Amino acid sequence: MTDCSAAPTLADIEGAAGRLAGVAVETPLLSSPVLDARLGGRLLVKAECLQRTGSFKFRGAYNRLSLIPAERRAAGVVAFSSGNHAQGVAAAAQILGMPAVIVMPLDAPAIKVANTRGYGAEVVLYDRVKEDRQAIGARLSAERGATLVPPYDDGGVMAGQGTVGLEIAAQAKARGLSPDAVLVNCSGGGLVSGVATALAAKLPKAKVHTVEPAGFDDARRSLAAGHKIPNAELQGSICDALMANVPGNITFPVMQSLLGEGYAVTDDEVRAAMIEAFKHFKLVIEPGGAASLAAILSGRCPIAGRTVVVVASGGNVDPVFYAETLKAA
Amino acid sequence: MTDCSAAPTLADIEGAAGRLAGVAVETPLLSSPVLDARLGGRLLVKAECLQRTGSFKFRGAYNRLSLIPAERRAAGVVAFSSGNHAQGVAAAAQILGMPAVIVMPLDAPAIKVANTRGYGAEVVLYDRVKEDRQAIGARLSAERGATLVPPYDDGGVMAGQGTVGLEIAAQAKARGLSPDAVLVNCSGGGLVSGVATALAAKLPKAKVHTVEPAGFDDARRSLAAGHKIPNAELQGSICDALMANVPGNITFPVMQSLLGEGYAVTDDEVRAAMIEAFKHFKLVIEPGGAASLAAILSGRCPIAGRTVVVVASGGNVDPVFYAETLKAA
Repeated sequence: MTDCSAAPTLADIEGAAGRLAGVAVETPLLSSPVLDARLGGRLLVKAECLQRTGSFKFRGAYNRLSLIPAERRAAGVVAFSSGNHAQGVAAAAQILGMPAVIVMPLDAPAIKVANTRGYGAEVVLYDRVKEDRQAIGARLSAERGATLVPPYDDGGVMAGQGTVGLEIAAQAKARGLSPDAVLVNCSGGGLVSGVATALAAKLPKAKVHTVEPAGFDDARRSLAAGHKIPNAELQGSICDALMANVPGNITFPVMQSLLGEGYAVTDDEVRAAMIEAFKHFKLVIEPGGAASLAAILSGRCPIAGRTVVVVASGGNVDPVFYAETLKAA
Repeated sequence: MTDCSAAPTLADIEGAAGRLAGVAVETPLLSSPVLDARLGGRLLVKAECLQRTGSFKFRGAYNRLSLIPAERRAAGVVAFSSGNHAQGVAAAAQILGMPAVIVMPLDAPAIKVANTRGYGAEVVLYDRVKEDRQAIGARLSAERGATLVPPYDDGGVMAGQGTVGLEIAAQAKARGLSPDAVLVNCSGGGLVSGVATALAAKLPKAKVHTVEPAGFDDARRSLAAGHKIPNAELQGSICDALMANVPGNITFPVMQSLLGEGYAVTDDEVRAAMIEAFKHFKLVIEPGGAASLAAILSGRCPIAGRTVVVVASGGNVDPVFYAETLKAA
């Protein structure tokens, strides 16, 4: 892959898997017989919160940075992100020996800002409501000659995220399972479109669905309408990782072509899913990472008699928020 | 293996691995580059809290129950346990279609008692200070004709736990790593002796060490003295999973033959390790499961310039206790 302005092919995703081998974690596909008995179905959790940097974003970032030609690496990279992409790009840049500057919203969780700096990146904070992160990123990129690494609307990023799909297919097959559906937390659509592209080839029986916070379900509404419909609000969900305003230009056609209907979940349903993940999977899942699990546990997506994979896409949650959430357990 | 009154051989452990394939989770060996940079060494966490039933105990229980002859299965099994062995035996019995009665202390964490019942087992509660759980277990076993499944002092149980060691060796090798040491949380010594037996063959360079709560470090003191020295107290640590009073009759000779020095960690060090596991590994680890990690993070066991595996042996912790612990983060 040399043109990152186009959606990735299966070959691009397999190429990304090769680059990520030995660098990214092959995260486990976990199950809970106790929960399965309660649900009357088979639930598989792709524990991407165990990924390097605490979310799937490392995959796309590392793959994208690996595609930057040698002569452009010294100028480094610029990225804008609510937090997980920031950490992914910062960690990938550190591994590849490239400088990184990350544009992050002022209200990003402290743990995400601290970790991004911990990977050696420079952090520039902006106001999510008053300022345009894309413009800030473009300006910094122009000033420094650095490569802009978008959070989702980029073929190299999407190919990296698609490796989650390859692993789901291989791990399910190794256990003799054939998932009926795969639920993917969706912000701008990089993960879901990459996963859907991989699964269309490797697990064609499985239907792939987006899951988003209620009120921020631009993907669900856009897919239903057949054209992109932005969210009315820019903030107001606990799912800080899922706040992209509208599907991407590269991701949306892939989503239209490959996805089933989308789901939307409430903050309370997300909190309940975080608690169940604590109890049954011993996984720390951040709000945005728990949306897919919430879609199952709330009953919004049926699982009785079916096998469903949910992607627990991240685990970067502030301890105080997490402790507060557990009080309802 | 037909004689469970002897310590397991490597062949017994490999036999257990065959029985557990596709039933137990092959738990991942996780690392945190951020933490490694801080420690100046390479830390690998064997995430056994992600095991079926939330702890390594499922391995030993399932292997032991699989060894019960067909004609004795209908009478079921009896086990005594502070909680994790209880859940392991209950779940294994459920899978194998055998009735199970579990003797648990009155002060066992509520989540462990609830989960044990959730696996369909009958629970009999006893007073940890006033009553002898071994005597209660023996009586119930005699009354019902059920097979007593001890928590650690049993060759079949030890062989099952030893599969953790086989996985550590294979996973480290697959990543081109050669661990210098493996730290194992120790109660009666079933896990550490099984792991040490496997690693003596598969990773002979690695030294295996026990980690216990300070004041309940009977294994450390017994190993140093060359004979078994029980703990003075029966309760008083947050590590409810590590409260066995003295090493077992079958486990101790194995431990004497194969282990390095033992470590002891304070409750505060354990709490700090639980917080770091939350932050860096996104793992929910129970107090007793975090002792080995605590031995590294407290500096009690050196890691600078070394590669050390810690076994995060369980994740069954009450949410209220966990939330309280996180407040110090």
